[in-house]
Amino acid sequence: MEPAPSMKRPRRATKRSPSLVLVNTGEGKGKSTAAFGTAFRAAGAGLRVCVIQFMKSGKWKTGEEKSGRDLGIEWWTLGDGFTWDSKDIDRTEAVAREAWAAARRTIESGDFDMVVLDEITYPLIWEWIDEAEVIEVIRHRPDHVNVLATGRHAPEALVDLADTVTEMVKRKHAFDSGVKALRGVDF
Amino acid sequence: MEPAPSMKRPRRATKRSPSLVLVNTGEGKGKSTAAFGTAFRAAGAGLRVCVIQFMKSGKWKTGEEKSGRDLGIEWWTLGDGFTWDSKDIDRTEAVAREAWAAARRTIESGDFDMVVLDEITYPLIWEWIDEAEVIEVIRHRPDHVNVLATGRHAPEALVDLADTVTEMVKRKHAFDSGVKALRGVDF
Repeated sequence: MEPAPSMKRPRRATKRSPSLVLVNTGEGKGKSTAAFGTAFRAAGAGLRVCVIQFMKSGKWKTGEEKSGRDLGIEWWTLGDGFTWDSKDIDRTEAVAREAWAAARRTIESGDFDMVVLDEITYPLIWEWIDEAEVIEVIRHRPDHVNVLATGRHAPEALVDLADTVTEMVKRKHAFDSGVKALRGVDF
Repeated sequence: MEPAPSMKRPRRATKRSPSLVLVNTGEGKGKSTAAFGTAFRAAGAGLRVCVIQFMKSGKWKTGEEKSGRDLGIEWWTLGDGFTWDSKDIDRTEAVAREAWAAARRTIESGDFDMVVLDEITYPLIWEWIDEAEVIEVIRHRPDHVNVLATGRHAPEALVDLADTVTEMVKRKHAFDSGVKALRGVDF
């Protein structure tokens, strides 16, 4: 049982940071979804937000993309529609490199207050894009640019650089009981 | 290093479920935010969504609330603006009971395809609302109503009932280095 509310008080934070680096990683659900939730919150608070999806192609519009665009979020699905069945990995790799080049320009431009690098860990892990370069671009970003990165197995250098890192752990998943994913809920 | 993409294939899910119960719990960030992300996705996919916040009062509008309303989500901040400094716990408890009564009617009405019970675990943990009743209402909900519940220390009965449970684990948090929360990003 949680202690009675009045007995527990948070410490005080005193430093101000002009922007943050947030990482959502782990094997569980909710990494991208929480990042999109943060993006929707930021848009509601008047921030200029850009979402860049590294693994999802623009061919198939999702509910989150529609909602994001409705809220004025720039929403780029720059990936190659990667799936575990992808036949042409070379092409997928080339597309991921282009997506990173676009992401880099977007961060460095300072045109957005928040840039979401959705599923960037996969091209990093497969060494399609250069980890040291990604780290340097995020480290030397314009002061006001918040960066959110998602995906499994976030590289240690990214975790070190981040202000806040959350690991999503799967305790239970409908899929494991053979239940199909539901449109609008799971994807 | 992750295995090469083509080597790894998911199993197949075959069962169809008309709706799901999702729980986001744990000590880390992103429980509510991921639930809101799912709500925004659902709204984008045309589902009727209602968000009920058990611990947050309507006095202070957040970015997520504004975005939610802009997307046509019913967004109810029914709590008493609970904080760790709350003076009048009796009042907060009474308000939480009313919030649950409203949530129960909302679920049972079948008027929404998704109902988010944000931070419902706290009134459950403090025994302000009856756990057995909450479990029964969710279990016997109309077939099409997806329910998302968030908060630390999700009760075991809720975890058992859920199709998908994600635990958000804090690996690192800006607050621990004394960095203040940023409007539009952290809240």
